[in-house]
Amino acid sequence: MQRRRAEICSSYLWQRYRTNHNKFCFFSSSSSSSSSNSNLTHNSFIKSPSLLNLDLPEIWNLHSPKKKLPLSPHYRADDQTAAVIDGISIAEEIRSGIADEINRMKHTIGKVPGLAVILVGQRRDSQAYVRNKIKACQEVGIMSLTTELPDDCVEDDVLHAVSNFNEDPSIHGVLVQLPLPQRMNEEKILHEVSLEKDVDGFHPLNIGNLAMRGREPLFIPCTPKGCIELLLRSNVEIMGKNAVIIGRSNIVGLPTSLLLQRHHATVTTVHAFSKNSDAITREADIVVSAAGIPNLVRGNWLKPGAVVIDVGTNPVEDPNSEHGYILTGDVCYEEAVKVASAITPVPGGVGPMTVAMLLSNTLDSAKLAYKFT
Amino acid sequence: MQRRRAEICSSYLWQRYRTNHNKFCFFSSSSSSSSSNSNLTHNSFIKSPSLLNLDLPEIWNLHSPKKKLPLSPHYRADDQTAAVIDGISIAEEIRSGIADEINRMKHTIGKVPGLAVILVGQRRDSQAYVRNKIKACQEVGIMSLTTELPDDCVEDDVLHAVSNFNEDPSIHGVLVQLPLPQRMNEEKILHEVSLEKDVDGFHPLNIGNLAMRGREPLFIPCTPKGCIELLLRSNVEIMGKNAVIIGRSNIVGLPTSLLLQRHHATVTTVHAFSKNSDAITREADIVVSAAGIPNLVRGNWLKPGAVVIDVGTNPVEDPNSEHGYILTGDVCYEEAVKVASAITPVPGGVGPMTVAMLLSNTLDSAKLAYKFT
Repeated sequence: MQRRRAEICSSYLWQRYRTNHNKFCFFSSSSSSSSSNSNLTHNSFIKSPSLLNLDLPEIWNLHSPKKKLPLSPHYRADDQTAAVIDGISIAEEIRSGIADEINRMKHTIGKVPGLAVILVGQRRDSQAYVRNKIKACQEVGIMSLTTELPDDCVEDDVLHAVSNFNEDPSIHGVLVQLPLPQRMNEEKILHEVSLEKDVDGFHPLNIGNLAMRGREPLFIPCTPKGCIELLLRSNVEIMGKNAVIIGRSNIVGLPTSLLLQRHHATVTTVHAFSKNSDAITREADIVVSAAGIPNLVRGNWLKPGAVVIDVGTNPVEDPNSEHGYILTGDVCYEEAVKVASAITPVPGGVGPMTVAMLLSNTLDSAKLAYKFT
Repeated sequence: MQRRRAEICSSYLWQRYRTNHNKFCFFSSSSSSSSSNSNLTHNSFIKSPSLLNLDLPEIWNLHSPKKKLPLSPHYRADDQTAAVIDGISIAEEIRSGIADEINRMKHTIGKVPGLAVILVGQRRDSQAYVRNKIKACQEVGIMSLTTELPDDCVEDDVLHAVSNFNEDPSIHGVLVQLPLPQRMNEEKILHEVSLEKDVDGFHPLNIGNLAMRGREPLFIPCTPKGCIELLLRSNVEIMGKNAVIIGRSNIVGLPTSLLLQRHHATVTTVHAFSKNSDAITREADIVVSAAGIPNLVRGNWLKPGAVVIDVGTNPVEDPNSEHGYILTGDVCYEEAVKVASAITPVPGGVGPMTVAMLLSNTLDSAKLAYKFT
């Protein structure tokens, strides 16, 4: 699920960049800004795009080690100060609550939630993610349906599958497994998913309602929701605390920053164009890293006692492991664990929460549909 | 316009607070969080609201002087270091560009943009704002229509007026002058405005598209758009700079932060629950204050050389002035002008830009409707 999300993000951004990078003017330095401004036509005086579009790819200009970091020579296992936030057991607790609730629903109104997944092609990783979701559904009592389409299907086939599930009253959440084949218009297909079944919570109306005070989205995106659950269930005070979110993807960084602000943290978003990311992060009481860069956040990026939520799930070469790689977070765990007061491991931190939150959103959606409280 | 927006914000937040403050649980401290969590029922395990709703009123706990600050005894007029960003002349330049563009539209396709304003009741300030907008429309060649409804009209009358303008093809922007009478459901009425005519840009779908990378809103809210225009036209480099937005209203603080992030600033939002707001603001290269608190931002809140955009337009008692009050910004101008490298005055900074951006959005909307490029 993590990797799938990272893929959505990076391929999408690159695609947008390729489409747009010649279309709009950039004001990237005062000199270019000056010349652009002095040559403004009446038309560009008033058009929004120049104000909006600085759609650059998110490339982190950092020399972070790609491989697993060797332990510092000063490393001592007993230096650890941080409590480990156990995402596996918290997610299990949540899934157990969901299972009970679905049981109650079944016995009260004779209905269960339904989740539909659309899978195009034969990508093995996508197949594995879909299997994982279906298994998680089965365990809590969510009915799941999968539509598998061949690699050579056309966009209309996918749209048709989405539309069928939109109209099926037994289905309360519709997921399109990404990435889709390059030739397909991902945004158009995702837009086809009915707002009431957008259990991923990525619809711009959901994001807008998440951002705005006094409004409520129908669904909170799963990974950000999982991060906040981890903080709340670990009794981390959020209100008034400085929070730094590293990364600003639509699916993790952005909604996490919006959600933390709803909880009255003072939120700073660090991204690939930020300067002094380490110094900014060092001011944070709560750090959520979702940059997708292994070992980006070193021990010296952290304020002593900070709480660290590591969303990164980066495959890093490791010839000693079974598959030739291991999953590594954005945070250099061995260093961070000596500075932070609490930290999520990778794997076993945010990852299991994402799937639990997908189940939770699907249940919420079914309750809404059946007016079951 | 400024005050109208401030009114939307504060009355709206208070109304929400009154509606919600008993409805959801707050996790305001680790102890309450702990007890809430340990008593979670299965139902609350999985429901979103506890994750979302910390809908507290935005009360700044500060001892900012309400009255106009006396000048420091050390004040010397020649201490000024900041360039003054002249919103009046920049707005004039923009309005002149809009007028030319409308002229071109009229001569090419025989059409002009149309803006509709709905005014309920006899509030003198609202009447003044509406007159101001109509005058600005006339000056650039935008056709304007006003529907004035009596104080004792019903909600359906307002909805009917909105609906009429939604259907009128000669109208490209619909504004409902706020505040509405207390008995009316403001959110419901605003929601009735067609997305294509939401030239205020407050629709959650617009805000969501403003927040998300790779998406574009139909309209950018007027005041935030005006702030960015001021920065761009003053050749202020935004990319990679630290920006602090003070205040997080839906109509100014939030969209300004999203827009600055689109320009690749590293954005921090300071609000009423922030701690050390002064120290955080002191790290900023760009400060946008939209808290609605006169003289909140003192000279010692600013890093030398910072660029300051002051959105505050706060009426402050002044027996010597014609109306018994003067308009004061959020920023203590006399102090800031000695520290900043550039600053907007109040009045004459952001205020004129807001109206210019409303005209700009209305023109954009008409161009879209007529497919005129």
